[in-house]
Amino acid sequence: MQDSATHPPLVSPLTDRECALLDAHWRALNYLAAGQLYLRDNPLLSEELRPEHVKPRLLGHWGTCPGLGLVHTHLNRVISARDLDVLCVWGPGHGAPAVLAGSWLDGTFGERWPDTGRDRAGMARLFERFSSPGGLPSHTAPVVPGSIQEGGELGYSLAHAYGAVLDNPDLLAVCVVGDGEAETGPLAASWHSTAFLDPVRDGTVLPVLHLNGYKIANPTVLSRIPEGDLDALLRGYGHDPLYVTAAPDTPPETVHRAMAAALDQALDRIAALRRTAREEGVAERPHRPMIVLRTPKGWTGPRELDGEPVEDTWRSHQIPLKDVRENPERLRALERWLRSYRPEELFDSSGRPRPEVLECVPRGGRRPGASPHADGGRLRRPLPLPDPSEFAVPVEAPGASVHEPTRVLGTLLRRLVEDTADRRDFRLVSPDEAESNHLQDVLAATPRAWQGAVLDTDRNLDRGGRVMEVLSEHLCQGWLEGYTLTGRHGLFASYEGFSTIVASMATQHAKWLQNAREVPWRAPVPSLNYLLSSHVWRQDHNGFSHQDPGFVDHILNKSPDVVRVYLPPDANTLLYVADHVLRTTDEVNVVVAGKQPCFDWLAPEQAREHCARGAGVWEWAGSEEPGREPDVVLACAGDVPTQEVLAAAALLREHLPDLAVRVVNVVDLARLLPSGSHPHGLSDGDFEALFTRDRPVVFAYHGYPWLIHRIAHRAGLHDRLHVRGYRESGSTTTPFDMVVRNDADRYRLVMDVVDRVPGLADRAAELRRTMERTRERHHHWVREHGTDLPEVDGWRWPG
Amino acid sequence: MQDSATHPPLVSPLTDRECALLDAHWRALNYLAAGQLYLRDNPLLSEELRPEHVKPRLLGHWGTCPGLGLVHTHLNRVISARDLDVLCVWGPGHGAPAVLAGSWLDGTFGERWPDTGRDRAGMARLFERFSSPGGLPSHTAPVVPGSIQEGGELGYSLAHAYGAVLDNPDLLAVCVVGDGEAETGPLAASWHSTAFLDPVRDGTVLPVLHLNGYKIANPTVLSRIPEGDLDALLRGYGHDPLYVTAAPDTPPETVHRAMAAALDQALDRIAALRRTAREEGVAERPHRPMIVLRTPKGWTGPRELDGEPVEDTWRSHQIPLKDVRENPERLRALERWLRSYRPEELFDSSGRPRPEVLECVPRGGRRPGASPHADGGRLRRPLPLPDPSEFAVPVEAPGASVHEPTRVLGTLLRRLVEDTADRRDFRLVSPDEAESNHLQDVLAATPRAWQGAVLDTDRNLDRGGRVMEVLSEHLCQGWLEGYTLTGRHGLFASYEGFSTIVASMATQHAKWLQNAREVPWRAPVPSLNYLLSSHVWRQDHNGFSHQDPGFVDHILNKSPDVVRVYLPPDANTLLYVADHVLRTTDEVNVVVAGKQPCFDWLAPEQAREHCARGAGVWEWAGSEEPGREPDVVLACAGDVPTQEVLAAAALLREHLPDLAVRVVNVVDLARLLPSGSHPHGLSDGDFEALFTRDRPVVFAYHGYPWLIHRIAHRAGLHDRLHVRGYRESGSTTTPFDMVVRNDADRYRLVMDVVDRVPGLADRAAELRRTMERTRERHHHWVREHGTDLPEVDGWRWPG
Repeated sequence: MQDSATHPPLVSPLTDRECALLDAHWRALNYLAAGQLYLRDNPLLSEELRPEHVKPRLLGHWGTCPGLGLVHTHLNRVISARDLDVLCVWGPGHGAPAVLAGSWLDGTFGERWPDTGRDRAGMARLFERFSSPGGLPSHTAPVVPGSIQEGGELGYSLAHAYGAVLDNPDLLAVCVVGDGEAETGPLAASWHSTAFLDPVRDGTVLPVLHLNGYKIANPTVLSRIPEGDLDALLRGYGHDPLYVTAAPDTPPETVHRAMAAALDQALDRIAALRRTAREEGVAERPHRPMIVLRTPKGWTGPRELDGEPVEDTWRSHQIPLKDVRENPERLRALERWLRSYRPEELFDSSGRPRPEVLECVPRGGRRPGASPHADGGRLRRPLPLPDPSEFAVPVEAPGASVHEPTRVLGTLLRRLVEDTADRRDFRLVSPDEAESNHLQDVLAATPRAWQGAVLDTDRNLDRGGRVMEVLSEHLCQGWLEGYTLTGRHGLFASYEGFSTIVASMATQHAKWLQNAREVPWRAPVPSLNYLLSSHVWRQDHNGFSHQDPGFVDHILNKSPDVVRVYLPPDANTLLYVADHVLRTTDEVNVVVAGKQPCFDWLAPEQAREHCARGAGVWEWAGSEEPGREPDVVLACAGDVPTQEVLAAAALLREHLPDLAVRVVNVVDLARLLPSGSHPHGLSDGDFEALFTRDRPVVFAYHGYPWLIHRIAHRAGLHDRLHVRGYRESGSTTTPFDMVVRNDADRYRLVMDVVDRVPGLADRAAELRRTMERTRERHHHWVREHGTDLPEVDGWRWPG
Repeated sequence: MQDSATHPPLVSPLTDRECALLDAHWRALNYLAAGQLYLRDNPLLSEELRPEHVKPRLLGHWGTCPGLGLVHTHLNRVISARDLDVLCVWGPGHGAPAVLAGSWLDGTFGERWPDTGRDRAGMARLFERFSSPGGLPSHTAPVVPGSIQEGGELGYSLAHAYGAVLDNPDLLAVCVVGDGEAETGPLAASWHSTAFLDPVRDGTVLPVLHLNGYKIANPTVLSRIPEGDLDALLRGYGHDPLYVTAAPDTPPETVHRAMAAALDQALDRIAALRRTAREEGVAERPHRPMIVLRTPKGWTGPRELDGEPVEDTWRSHQIPLKDVRENPERLRALERWLRSYRPEELFDSSGRPRPEVLECVPRGGRRPGASPHADGGRLRRPLPLPDPSEFAVPVEAPGASVHEPTRVLGTLLRRLVEDTADRRDFRLVSPDEAESNHLQDVLAATPRAWQGAVLDTDRNLDRGGRVMEVLSEHLCQGWLEGYTLTGRHGLFASYEGFSTIVASMATQHAKWLQNAREVPWRAPVPSLNYLLSSHVWRQDHNGFSHQDPGFVDHILNKSPDVVRVYLPPDANTLLYVADHVLRTTDEVNVVVAGKQPCFDWLAPEQAREHCARGAGVWEWAGSEEPGREPDVVLACAGDVPTQEVLAAAALLREHLPDLAVRVVNVVDLARLLPSGSHPHGLSDGDFEALFTRDRPVVFAYHGYPWLIHRIAHRAGLHDRLHVRGYRESGSTTTPFDMVVRNDADRYRLVMDVVDRVPGLADRAAELRRTMERTRERHHHWVREHGTDLPEVDGWRWPG
């Protein structure tokens, strides 16, 4: 605890009057929070509380509200006093009643939702709408002004806060971390974000660890470990903690004075650290301030019920007094509780907060509910994207050359990074895989963000770098969510196989975007963009544990308004896909692309057109005649399946020269969906124009084959559609052995075609035998030589 | 650093001879590890190294191997000296060459794989098989003796180690945590497992934090934060760290002496803590020993290449010298490197390790590769499961009563917990949701495991409790994986919506089980069993963020040999499903069941039969006549869909009394798959016997509706199958409003039926209007009253 000695003692900066006014504001928050849980009428308690004033269904969480309210009240004071640019991140977002109360009190709620303003009717409406069907959700959500944080699935608040302050040097994100949330993995990892935050170019996060004592039913770990261990832990994370502790019996004034002193000290220290870093440069890792706020769960609520303690126990997690309508004694207890906040001192008879209650509230955009960063779409500037054709590779003929698609993308991203050097509103995040995914060209334009020691042998590390690398997909995702929700742009480059680590975070973000689209005052924010590389077919090195293409399946279960999936088949198409997704808003875009050498199929202009269509016939690859329906459609999505389909098409052309084969490539997977099911879906007519009305379709897909059946769900298609893909058969093996193991190789595709096209008779049988023999030969060869068949390794599109 | 003062100085316990022998063992490990990466011939370097001795594809990871090898060597010593029961958990499992080398040296590899024993041929085969197609994977995997840990997806080693020592009081799990892995969320959370480990009834985990310095391309956070911060962090976790540090120039003897001293001190301390706790009881949270091992990445490997440093940088992560076959200079460098271990001193001319190299190796089951806990299936005892009928609820008539299914299950689990009180081989894990999921009866038999402070107001907390609750799905899963892989049983109870948090962990575990089934010497381990409750349809309280039924979709993408999904429709069926899954081995079982009051449909014996069939016709619910095909099949899976289907059946019976309706309920979702695709799949004949040959099927499913299309993928079915389910339309709302929002309600199902059954003419139109009017009424009612329609709330099966 070496730093503690240097702290001045916590002397309260408050006069008695200031203290009383802060307490009034806090009581108002608590009253409004409790009112949301219980009341549907008589909002000001202007008459005796009767059963019919109470909601029929009591839903919501009380336990964390008074603690959140205390933070809210005191932030109002310091923002006003110091004119701070503050974004609040409320980790315990299920304490929405406190946050809603705050934005109602500071006026922002009524500005955004004009029927719910600061008067009796507005208060009644706030109470009534809370947790009612179609009303305000019981967690913070896009409808809540000033919020970027849903508190349903816990663990992401601190990463969101860090993401928000990146490249926002004057922003202070105050992040309340619940002690339940603090037990989650993502939150536990997030503390180490201190190692990535640049004190010069980034803003500051002030964590408030709220030791509320209990989760739903259990005590929390951090509230019960010895105080010395807790202090050591937080110092280990790079913090210098300040403690504010309230027991049920602590007089509120004592708490207010301690909280005010702690905040002042933290903010003085933050200002000093900023100044030193910006004026004198950074010498060593500073211990940044944070606050540990220990309060009773359900503080100021009912002390006990039926002889059991309620305040300061898990019993106050949700609704501390139940069956209030039915039980007159409890109704009285509720009334006593609500009146304990002395609402008559807080609101006038028309329900307006009295001026002195609002004295601490800052003005205009400084109000917590009005932070422009929380409606980040308004701060968004479209990226200065270069023309992809500048970075496109020349393609003499299809398949005549190879490039590494992600490497080519890296050249475009490098330019983008250069062109945003002053704006600083684009970041690449990656779990230590930017180079491994062949995006190393980006590092020529910006190093990796790194605040720790740098050794002579290190490369590309710098405090101001805009590539963020940490071996935590959760942190990458959390940072990027915070960054995009506050209006900036980014790309998350990951191994495909490990993207499922953040499946649930992607769900929550997609839900947030889906709801935010329905909030009229929210402007669209930049999309969350994934680049999944080192994909399932090319894990030669790492094998089975690294093979999972299921993130796409997961994403496509979410709202079609939000989710998009792209599988560019080569380098140039990847450029145009990337260009597209970086221009979009309010979407979750998943781009799957390889990093290994891949045939170039489309020249730049062809690539642009193909990506714009999202799916199309590759006439040059097929053997159909104009005006005649083909005998079979060979379709593909993904770089390896495209290669196998073209190799199969070449084999068919060689062995069955009069078979009319159509080759269809799909870049934008949602094109396969019906037009009524997804904004990118094809009409039945357009779908038929690609896939014919009745011909067999053999489809080689990058991932689990049944996904194609699920999305290409059209009348009459099912029984003529045959899909090959990854079937969970993996290993450390050669690239071609992977497709053979999963029955998605060129020889199998040829067999699939001859099995499905009628009238081939003897020629089919013979070709099938040839294909089977080649697969046999492959099996022996790969066991013996550890490499692929020479005819596969050396295969070229015949042109 | 208060505890450090009390440490005796690290005095080496080694004689010079012992030190030399340990070094020989370590050199042998390093030689064997490097050999696996490079050699396909000339394994003993008995002749000059030529290009053809080198593998054509160089795959694998060198960087972490020497550090892992050092731990391995020294564990051999202390196990021998102290006769310890040790399980090694290798977090950096991509350092498989070191682990394989260890098990080859201790003889266990050759015992399990007799063609790869301790002689020249066996060594050559080990080298050749490593990372070759169909050979040994480049990460530790089930084929590796002594291992329960795949190191591909990082983050789970420490939780596995804690899971392994639960209820194994004499076991010591030595867990090497990589500093890359340490950045992940799950690992960061795992350190707090100290708060749950009972020093009396559980064993001990000795973490070895391996500060290898670099990940793939970046330095690691923990290797670069100030040493004081690192020490504080680890003390904060409840540890008392011992430091062993090696720089590239440190003489090996110095490192051996330091490592031996640190291990001795740690083990003395562990023995003392055990003794104190068991003889005198536990007073306060002890700081448990751990080792921080700082070594150069790629230690003892090539110092530099082309003027760039390799050892001690990220460049030694995988293959430090590439293009060895093509470049004679590099070939010489490789030979120098390999000969630096002096293989001629380590192996005799027939390739057998010299006796002195093996002097430190313990005997028999004490060898690291022979730990019985790593082949936990051999320790497994079937659970003493009670007869479910004892706990079943009486059912006078279908739908005549209601019970909370999970609550009823809790009564059975309580008995199971009582009946395993002495064996201690069953645990319930839950992210603070055991009570919330209505399993509170279990707590009458055992409290929650809790080592922290206990207050007067706390309930059901005790050091020896067998319910594990922490607000981290990752920890719950990791603990249970470690527990079941070492042969014990458990159940993971979670909110359905948050189960996706562990989607990727479930993937990795399913992959492990899939591979383990193919390893002849591994015995089957108890299955990993999930109980998902608080499901998508009943998140009245928490709303949209808590609604995600996609875990089932995710699981069903994995190997059909491993995965199973059950959706019991009521309390009694849940009992029989639970009874079944707790008897199985080598599976991942997902059981989805509600906690809210649910109609009882099946009497105990009926429930038993229905669960045994997995899917069946509920004759009592339909209106078909024997011997006549029904007009329509109403199918359902899940408790809420079952209720809606029965309500629809009742409406149809009322309004269209001559319509022949068949009701089919599906408990075991895999029954819908074809028999060739899943061991539980139905043959086409059996499928038709349920779903008819050609009648329309209206299916109400618990989750995303397309999953049913995907699994019920049979010829001719597609166009007559119509599925309703959750379509990502959620909110804080009433239970019935949830099904209406997703078009899965009884009225919609009736409309679906009348739209699909031909020949209903006017009656269909009229019924459709009635249904639409009722849905309209619902919309108004729920907005106005905040509750469901009285006719829905009061609905009962007409019987």
